[in-house]
Amino acid sequence: MFTRTLAAAAVLALLPTPASANLDKAADRAAESDVLAWDFVEGISTEVGPRQAGTEAEARGRVWAVRWLRANGFANVADEQFMMDTWVPGDVMRATVVAPYAQPLEIVPLGNSAATPAGGLTAQVVHFASYAALEAAPEGSLTGKIAFIDHAMRATQDGSSYGFAGPARWTGPGLAASKGAVATVIRSIGTESERTPHTGGTSFADGVGPTPAAALSNPDADNLARMIARAGDRRVMLRLELNSRQIGRTQSGNVVGEILGRDRNLPPVLLACHLDSWWNGTGAFDDGAGCGIIAAAAKAVAASGRPLRTIRVLFAGAEETGLWGSKAYAAAHKGEPVFVGLESDFGADRVWRIDSNFSASDPELYRKLAASVARFGVAPSREVASGGADLNWVREQDGALIDLQQDGTRYFDLHHTNNDTLDKIDKAQLRQNVAVWTVVTGILANHPAPIQRAPTR
Amino acid sequence: MFTRTLAAAAVLALLPTPASANLDKAADRAAESDVLAWDFVEGISTEVGPRQAGTEAEARGRVWAVRWLRANGFANVADEQFMMDTWVPGDVMRATVVAPYAQPLEIVPLGNSAATPAGGLTAQVVHFASYAALEAAPEGSLTGKIAFIDHAMRATQDGSSYGFAGPARWTGPGLAASKGAVATVIRSIGTESERTPHTGGTSFADGVGPTPAAALSNPDADNLARMIARAGDRRVMLRLELNSRQIGRTQSGNVVGEILGRDRNLPPVLLACHLDSWWNGTGAFDDGAGCGIIAAAAKAVAASGRPLRTIRVLFAGAEETGLWGSKAYAAAHKGEPVFVGLESDFGADRVWRIDSNFSASDPELYRKLAASVARFGVAPSREVASGGADLNWVREQDGALIDLQQDGTRYFDLHHTNNDTLDKIDKAQLRQNVAVWTVVTGILANHPAPIQRAPTR
Repeated sequence: MFTRTLAAAAVLALLPTPASANLDKAADRAAESDVLAWDFVEGISTEVGPRQAGTEAEARGRVWAVRWLRANGFANVADEQFMMDTWVPGDVMRATVVAPYAQPLEIVPLGNSAATPAGGLTAQVVHFASYAALEAAPEGSLTGKIAFIDHAMRATQDGSSYGFAGPARWTGPGLAASKGAVATVIRSIGTESERTPHTGGTSFADGVGPTPAAALSNPDADNLARMIARAGDRRVMLRLELNSRQIGRTQSGNVVGEILGRDRNLPPVLLACHLDSWWNGTGAFDDGAGCGIIAAAAKAVAASGRPLRTIRVLFAGAEETGLWGSKAYAAAHKGEPVFVGLESDFGADRVWRIDSNFSASDPELYRKLAASVARFGVAPSREVASGGADLNWVREQDGALIDLQQDGTRYFDLHHTNNDTLDKIDKAQLRQNVAVWTVVTGILANHPAPIQRAPTR
Repeated sequence: MFTRTLAAAAVLALLPTPASANLDKAADRAAESDVLAWDFVEGISTEVGPRQAGTEAEARGRVWAVRWLRANGFANVADEQFMMDTWVPGDVMRATVVAPYAQPLEIVPLGNSAATPAGGLTAQVVHFASYAALEAAPEGSLTGKIAFIDHAMRATQDGSSYGFAGPARWTGPGLAASKGAVATVIRSIGTESERTPHTGGTSFADGVGPTPAAALSNPDADNLARMIARAGDRRVMLRLELNSRQIGRTQSGNVVGEILGRDRNLPPVLLACHLDSWWNGTGAFDDGAGCGIIAAAAKAVAASGRPLRTIRVLFAGAEETGLWGSKAYAAAHKGEPVFVGLESDFGADRVWRIDSNFSASDPELYRKLAASVARFGVAPSREVASGGADLNWVREQDGALIDLQQDGTRYFDLHHTNNDTLDKIDKAQLRQNVAVWTVVTGILANHPAPIQRAPTR
């Protein structure tokens, strides 16, 4: 919980603010030789590994993170627990084409997928080249069939192709179910051609499903599409076996910690990431790296001199399966103002652009921030920051937000796959992240005035 | 079976030999626009997929290949069947670190691995940084333990690092078993950092094992090594669950076909590849591509004019699990001379060097061959060709051999993984292979004299 120690704050507020030269030096040190972000992500990848939301593995991750934050001198470290509805992937995830060309395909279930009946489910596959093609399918036309949504994603530096391709996963299986499909397989929402299917959440509208829903790796989706093309008039029959399921209410939690500022009356700078991961990878790129980056930056700011404002880190729980952690945080901390929110949840590659939602309303602060990170190769922009998923509640409250945009070119090669492992992190780019976050966080945490915000629409 | 039609051959031998200009044109056409090699590998990857030796899937592959060769005008197409001892991987392949850092690891069983007891096998892991370190372990020192052979492989263009790293898989598990190990896990004999463990055969000496034996992906081997380093004095405990097993004698076969030469009294040119694959990939790079290349080259030579000698293609069965096919072929065709043997079994990347075992004894022919492929970027060499694994019997009979060496830089990224799929094949490089094989095969198939060979040692 946020602690206000008014007397101490009054004294501390009189101390000199750290010179920006100190902050620049701290950032340079981070860019050259930060080891703390790596220490976090290497440690949690090795000692905990996968941290599926709501499971005992995620709980071990929280214990590990609490210990790590305390060992690194954070104050007010806590595991703020909450209850959630928990889905687990199970340990059976098989797909087999049984006719006309028998062979196994690699799949993973999507979050919220139902199990198949024991022994599996066999049905004809109907191919949709895009989400739009599925939308155009008549009601009832998929009765008794398996929809195959073959909607391909391409890599983009800014991750915008997730918006183009994501619906195939987010709502495709529910849409197919509403037209009668007994199950859905999608081409992975992923940009690599490796045998690594991408999981991720899917939602079913009320009264529809859930049905079994799984993602094929890109090579498997290619193969299934070729089979359908070759089969001509023959039906392509697919057998699915999944035992993923909802297991009811279980506990999760948000891990928080603070670098205490000199004036605890001032709203804090909130740095967010998420601690959970899907079961299949070790949650290194998504999002162990993000937690390492924000914690290392907070520590680097502290090392350059105690900041004016408190810096709070939020390692959100259960992000992947429905933003349970950030919703619980917003509820538990209702009425506590936040100075500005920033989230790191897009891998570990370099920051290339700084966006905010106050560049028009408080141009002086935005220009100062942008100028401070130009030397690390970060471009200014007129884009409006929307905050990460764990900061949706800040955006909804019209709070100030900054997005330190990372290079996402290879992010969707790894996202939600078993291949999200420590070796994918480039140490130099990870350090660049820490350096950029250090400067930005340091400037914000020493900014005495409120951020000028445009009036709410 | 090889057919000698003496009367026809006597007539055909009088026909004019095709001009080398025709052959060069055929090779140019292949380099520009060959589609036959792709047609083969795309077809078998899509319509059959994995072809584990001795199983019904391999049998479907043979039926498919026989049909394909006949459809493409090959003569004397046959499935020459034989019996073999068959190992199957099973469908349970799990590894879980249970202490001190619980998390699952990705593994595949090695060929000839035993199953674990029902419910799995849990034991302490003992780390060996290299094969030499395992060799140095005292007898009996591994009793009741799981050996972890952490012998890393690096990529090499000529594949020579397989010789350096391979023993960890070929004989490591047997060596560990001889020192008391109840099971062995190895770092994959592979050069990529993807979550794709590499299978492959392992052998146990008489009276030793078999024990359970599996390969960890490189990221998982990294992770297990880090855990062992962090555990200090604590024991790292691993649970293995495998149900791979020997299933006794089953049928396999070698698929053969011919481009008939004008003189059937002359020993044929033998082009080899293997049709089986491990169960996990679709056998595209290893070795669907090889079969496609040799068949496409044989057809391209035929299209340039009927060759003097017969060109025989051998799609060997059951190569991966112990060269059953090539041994059966050698036994069935004992006493039938071979003019020269060539094998394509190293992926689908470009040919960069031509080796033979007669460059000193028949320099004129070698120089002619080397000169003919220089324009495709193929270098001459003084290396002595050893033939592919399916041509061991030709080497043992002191037959003439040519190795058209392929760029192996990324071969061991994919070798024996589930990631060996069609999308990994670069069409331009595949066509370069066909072009080089066309020229070389055409020259050889029109060479009237025996190849001068050095006397046997």
